[in-house]
Amino acid sequence: MPSYKAPVEDTLFLLRDVLGYERHGNLPGFSDAPLEVVEAILGEAAKLAEEVFQPLNRIGDLEGCTRHGDGRVTTPKGFKPAYDAFRQGGWIGLSAPVAYGGQGLPMMLTSVLGEYMSAANLALAMYPGLTQGAIAAILAHGSDEQKSAYLPKMIEGEWSGTMNLTEPQCGTDLGLIKTKAVANGDGSYAISGTKIFISSGEHDLADNIIHLVLARIEGAPQGTKGISLFIVPKRLVQPDGSPGEPNGVSCGSIEHKMGIHGNATCVMNYDGAKGFLIGEENRGLNAMFVMMNEARLAVGVQGLAQSEVAYQNAAAYAKERLQGRALSGAKAPGKPADPIIVHPDVRRMLMSMRAFNEGARAFVLWTALKADIAHRSDTAADRQAAEDHLGLMTPIVKGVLTDIGFENTVKAQQVFGGHGYIAEWGMEQFVRDARIAMLYEGANGIQAMDLVGRKLGKDGGRAAMAFFNEVTIFLKENASDESLTGLTKALETALGHLQQATMWFMQNAVARPDHAGAGATDYMHMFGLVALAYMWVRIAKAAQAKLKAGADGEAARMKGKVETAKFFMQRMLPETAAQLARIVSGADSVMALDAEAF
Amino acid sequence: MPSYKAPVEDTLFLLRDVLGYERHGNLPGFSDAPLEVVEAILGEAAKLAEEVFQPLNRIGDLEGCTRHGDGRVTTPKGFKPAYDAFRQGGWIGLSAPVAYGGQGLPMMLTSVLGEYMSAANLALAMYPGLTQGAIAAILAHGSDEQKSAYLPKMIEGEWSGTMNLTEPQCGTDLGLIKTKAVANGDGSYAISGTKIFISSGEHDLADNIIHLVLARIEGAPQGTKGISLFIVPKRLVQPDGSPGEPNGVSCGSIEHKMGIHGNATCVMNYDGAKGFLIGEENRGLNAMFVMMNEARLAVGVQGLAQSEVAYQNAAAYAKERLQGRALSGAKAPGKPADPIIVHPDVRRMLMSMRAFNEGARAFVLWTALKADIAHRSDTAADRQAAEDHLGLMTPIVKGVLTDIGFENTVKAQQVFGGHGYIAEWGMEQFVRDARIAMLYEGANGIQAMDLVGRKLGKDGGRAAMAFFNEVTIFLKENASDESLTGLTKALETALGHLQQATMWFMQNAVARPDHAGAGATDYMHMFGLVALAYMWVRIAKAAQAKLKAGADGEAARMKGKVETAKFFMQRMLPETAAQLARIVSGADSVMALDAEAF
Repeated sequence: MPSYKAPVEDTLFLLRDVLGYERHGNLPGFSDAPLEVVEAILGEAAKLAEEVFQPLNRIGDLEGCTRHGDGRVTTPKGFKPAYDAFRQGGWIGLSAPVAYGGQGLPMMLTSVLGEYMSAANLALAMYPGLTQGAIAAILAHGSDEQKSAYLPKMIEGEWSGTMNLTEPQCGTDLGLIKTKAVANGDGSYAISGTKIFISSGEHDLADNIIHLVLARIEGAPQGTKGISLFIVPKRLVQPDGSPGEPNGVSCGSIEHKMGIHGNATCVMNYDGAKGFLIGEENRGLNAMFVMMNEARLAVGVQGLAQSEVAYQNAAAYAKERLQGRALSGAKAPGKPADPIIVHPDVRRMLMSMRAFNEGARAFVLWTALKADIAHRSDTAADRQAAEDHLGLMTPIVKGVLTDIGFENTVKAQQVFGGHGYIAEWGMEQFVRDARIAMLYEGANGIQAMDLVGRKLGKDGGRAAMAFFNEVTIFLKENASDESLTGLTKALETALGHLQQATMWFMQNAVARPDHAGAGATDYMHMFGLVALAYMWVRIAKAAQAKLKAGADGEAARMKGKVETAKFFMQRMLPETAAQLARIVSGADSVMALDAEAF
Repeated sequence: MPSYKAPVEDTLFLLRDVLGYERHGNLPGFSDAPLEVVEAILGEAAKLAEEVFQPLNRIGDLEGCTRHGDGRVTTPKGFKPAYDAFRQGGWIGLSAPVAYGGQGLPMMLTSVLGEYMSAANLALAMYPGLTQGAIAAILAHGSDEQKSAYLPKMIEGEWSGTMNLTEPQCGTDLGLIKTKAVANGDGSYAISGTKIFISSGEHDLADNIIHLVLARIEGAPQGTKGISLFIVPKRLVQPDGSPGEPNGVSCGSIEHKMGIHGNATCVMNYDGAKGFLIGEENRGLNAMFVMMNEARLAVGVQGLAQSEVAYQNAAAYAKERLQGRALSGAKAPGKPADPIIVHPDVRRMLMSMRAFNEGARAFVLWTALKADIAHRSDTAADRQAAEDHLGLMTPIVKGVLTDIGFENTVKAQQVFGGHGYIAEWGMEQFVRDARIAMLYEGANGIQAMDLVGRKLGKDGGRAAMAFFNEVTIFLKENASDESLTGLTKALETALGHLQQATMWFMQNAVARPDHAGAGATDYMHMFGLVALAYMWVRIAKAAQAKLKAGADGEAARMKGKVETAKFFMQRMLPETAAQLARIVSGADSVMALDAEAF
């Protein structure tokens, strides 16, 4: 049976020593959370993840969710008390406004919480996770009445939330939405249609479920400009604020999926259900994108989370499993064989996962802190710069962390040899569960197109230029630090590749957009590698500083950081050269064949 | 529901136009199989795969195998008649000696058969597949009596076969085997112990199961030099050759696995079962390696097979699913959206799979023909050269084709977006089924070590040098062919990288074997890419020749080959530069951390 230990120490090191968390004290909510408080909060989150969520992970996979004849859905045994523990701990509203019952703490904390909970039990963590997305959308676009009617209950976790976008004929291309909204004359609308792939669509964890539903108001323009967003509660809210009679929405079936069996992925049928418009008519996509961007960051974190828990279990197995002898001579001569961690190819796999996990964790925290600045700074320039960063990095966090996160669950499974294929070991569940994150909230090809087609050129390329400048200045400032030379040189080369690829798009993709499409995925991954490399140099610099200062009990861990940074540069970053070669080969060979040839 | 069409046309093109199949007419068995006969045979194999095996693929996954209280195992509904159709068609003994009831046809045909059947239904194809491995071991090392007692029934498929190596404490490191063999005094042995992960270990498809079991004879030396191979029939064979009383072997349980649910992966308990030594005492590993090498090639083919069927279904979906508009303007303006095959990122995924599949198919056929030469040529030099090739390429075929084959099932699933995660579409089954091939018959890290640690340096590096020479001469001969310039240049660069990596190992790995271990997987993949690139230039050359000669109805297909070759060179081969960089970075950063740091 797999286990999990939340990496609290690593999170704290990154916040304190690498990302200068304490410099953010001027932002609202941060003064309530100095590092000692952060440490205490993360300690509690870790306990919940390790002791309550993780033990239910395999049960959830085996048992799955059950839909009854009347449309009710039962979650796996133990999920309800675990959910209750989560909501009663106030975790859903950790960063939500105090005015609606939240704790107003940094959004960064919610992101860390997401990592720990998703690593422990992805299927279970998704229930409150979806609620958080719905809260964000109502906060940003709901009326004051809507906010007071829904937010306190959602933040308290008494009610949960969902996102309803997809229909059978309509995934990425939301212009194809058919779900209809007809004005009832009393300000409300009658919503009719079928939505599919609705995570947490129906369940027994909360008293009410607040569905956010994209639909087309009768007579609205075709395409994406005729779509509106509605609040459709499972049970209509009574004047006293409590849930009353059932609304015309029901779960038609639960999908049979590859993984995340513990989460009820539902087909939702809307049959004249009463819905309430959020924001303006026909501007539903704007409102939905608030939710989506939040969700995309959270999904990227899920990729990291599954990679981390899979890594931890692979490392433990590699230290225990005896098989073969070290190439350099027996390491455990008293035992029948050496532990397989002595084998360089096993190390290669473990180091790859570790270098990704620790680098990606820094990348996520860095970006999460920008979200706090974007939402909370009182300086317009800071807000804008942070928003630029967030817009640019969101598709990268989502696409790269879920792609590599999945690959790492496969690597971790590989460390187990044949045992990795056997369900009881739990490694194959990580692979099946992690796979979803590459698909939902926009398949990763869509993330790549969002980056290359939208974010890169936005405002004259301001966001990307800011990133390039930041890294360039950092490299200059640290050019004379000999302890970092190997690392900075590697980062400089990779940054050069990224700039060349960017330039190539600028010169070629306007005339032929297919050039951008053909290189988008490679570009997204290259950007991710450069961002992680930048994180790794900063991590190594912080670690070197601690080592010079004595480092107390942390010396081994800090040396590990420096070595892992080297591994990242030598073993993972060289990929940017191949990515650049592929990008500049353009669309010709990609698009050469007729569709009929396939 | 997925479908499958066996790529008979492509197999024939490769044999006829690329690999010069007809030049092999001097080998025994080949004169019975001119290309027209090959075409007819493959046509029949295709029918069986498409019409009998493929429709059972999902049923097998859903139903799995059932072990009854008495140890009997029932396979999924429909498997028995399908197996009967396969064995009655004479497919098991297609390439087996005529003397034992086989057809004596080229082994290459059995390899093609393996591709089609494994693509259609991997779990089902494994039952006769294991029998073929057992036949090979008995043929190579059994006594004449053993051959006549077992081979005819196995070749006929009335009896099936298994390989019993793994034990709970012993996977890769066969020196750790504990299963005991005690001489009974009558020439037979009493075998006792537990074997795990035994594919097709118990089932209801055959009247008898011939287990080949590795065990340690009482008093034998420790480690791999004290292991012997035994025939342990499920039912003991009576003097008249029919199966009689049950032997002391039984299925203790069926493993719960990630995939290939239709194949019974068993824990086998041996409790004083009667066993018969094959070959010499304590030389069991040698005998087992015959079986293993055969099996490793077959497993590599499984990787290709799953990649091919996943690709076919992804391509079909991409042509049907309407979503979004082409970047270059609407391609299906009359429809609500364009088919997703217009999107460059979808094309990129399809082209990657296609370029791998067609190149890998050539690589497999090329290697399978070498197996025929190695076994059947009357010229010692030809046999040796073919054996060199086979020894060198076996770990590459196994390791690379199953790694990339798996990745391609993931890519194919990605083309389906969220639908790829839903079981009914069948794409997630390909991912789960293909995953096993990276693990069994030696996890892929073991293949990489076999290549770098054993095959590369064998006989002074003769095999690798022969490959480098062949490619170098080919490049010289085609240097003036301008229609191939882009392709030959790319191959030359990649070959250079491979030679540099080889040289680096020679100069560094003797003094520090960890350098070889740390670079082994990258080296194996680099070698695979160069081999596939060599195949692609030969394919493009053949296609150009056909186009010049008119090409009749094949023009579109031949142009497709030329374009796909370009794609391979521009989009897949650049990886060798990154692989080289990783290899020459050596073992330092891989091995730097203490085991306790993980």
